[in-house]
Amino acid sequence: MASGWFYLCCLVLGSLGSMCILFTAYWMQFWCGGFAWDGSTHTFNWHPVLTVAGMVVFYGAGSLVYRLPQSWLGPKLPWKLLHAALHLMAFSLTVVGLVAVFKFHNHNHIANLYSLHSWLGITTVFLFACQWFLGFAIFLLPWASLWLRSLLKPIHVFFGASILSLSIASVISGINEKLFFTLKNATQPYSSLPSQAVFANSTGMLVVAFGLLVLYILLASSWKRPEPGILTDRQPLLHDGE
Amino acid sequence: MASGWFYLCCLVLGSLGSMCILFTAYWMQFWCGGFAWDGSTHTFNWHPVLTVAGMVVFYGAGSLVYRLPQSWLGPKLPWKLLHAALHLMAFSLTVVGLVAVFKFHNHNHIANLYSLHSWLGITTVFLFACQWFLGFAIFLLPWASLWLRSLLKPIHVFFGASILSLSIASVISGINEKLFFTLKNATQPYSSLPSQAVFANSTGMLVVAFGLLVLYILLASSWKRPEPGILTDRQPLLHDGE
Repeated sequence: MASGWFYLCCLVLGSLGSMCILFTAYWMQFWCGGFAWDGSTHTFNWHPVLTVAGMVVFYGAGSLVYRLPQSWLGPKLPWKLLHAALHLMAFSLTVVGLVAVFKFHNHNHIANLYSLHSWLGITTVFLFACQWFLGFAIFLLPWASLWLRSLLKPIHVFFGASILSLSIASVISGINEKLFFTLKNATQPYSSLPSQAVFANSTGMLVVAFGLLVLYILLASSWKRPEPGILTDRQPLLHDGE
Repeated sequence: MASGWFYLCCLVLGSLGSMCILFTAYWMQFWCGGFAWDGSTHTFNWHPVLTVAGMVVFYGAGSLVYRLPQSWLGPKLPWKLLHAALHLMAFSLTVVGLVAVFKFHNHNHIANLYSLHSWLGITTVFLFACQWFLGFAIFLLPWASLWLRSLLKPIHVFFGASILSLSIASVISGINEKLFFTLKNATQPYSSLPSQAVFANSTGMLVVAFGLLVLYILLASSWKRPEPGILTDRQPLLHDGE
């Protein structure tokens, strides 16, 4: 039962995550003119797609590695490598997404990092970078003692969930901001809720739903990887009959 | 030690929470023309102040009632009443904050509930209302069985933290939106980061810091109220010497 419920959550999560990326790409492609890398507004259009893919979807997927029942038995190292690799991919996508918006701004002589969206967004990426490098140094490289690891693990877990929450806040404020920029003409203002506004607002709400589901799976105690020594053959996720 | 660290966190939290409310009020008073209840933009100005006070500061304070070491011993009912009362106050402030923005919109023939900020905000308030009424019905009224309470408690705790995260996302997108509305003239655009923009962006970042600190205190396991039967005289927060 518990196992079935977990995999159902994963299925919903996979669908929601794919929809978040596809909907953002569709919004940029069909309402905002598509993609390019020439400094024009089409360069900017990579920014929402890559940051939603990186800071939300890949980040969320990477966070949940240790919730897979397969990760509970045997050596932890391969799962740590997967956890680090997925987050490195998330970080790389995000960095390219940031380069896109800086390139667009610089090409069009628009100031960088003035809005609250950008302040929060860059803070979130900075925290993500610190989290990744500290996680790599402490939990993946072999030098750190068990004492240091167990001291830092709750902080690593807390910041992991916090960074996802801040990513969601950044994405929501970013979509909101973009819609006020795009829909400012008098014939189809944002306030008249044209189809683009309904579509992009819905995409934002999908991102929220995805983020909440990741946090739910992360925090649900029965899906956490048991600490060494307490894994028994009554572990619910490994035995369907329970 | 643990006790001292907890109270230091509470002191920082109190200062941050007060600053969030005062800074938002200062922004509305000195840059946006102050407060009124006549349907003008001065009516709108109650919206940021009351929603930050309600959905973030009072909500956060109400969430942490069971982290006070004093709540760990003796009957739980008085603390439940305090938990419910603080959240009822948070909800009331939020509702008045919502009435302010609807009154302003209706008076000026501006559409309601079109931006992503408003979609997320109203969803968050709706979840808060469900959470409060379910919490009241299940955990405060005496009819529910212990089985039902222990089944619903993790869900109540999860949504408690989630609603705070969504409130932060709503506040960030709201401040961002308000600044784009206010600072759209060519002499002092938002992108030139005039003093109002720096002040309001900083207020948004304070709200983020407050929210993260509430979540940290909520989730730190050593500060959670022990379940009945596991409270011993070695409980760290009750004995300074440990």
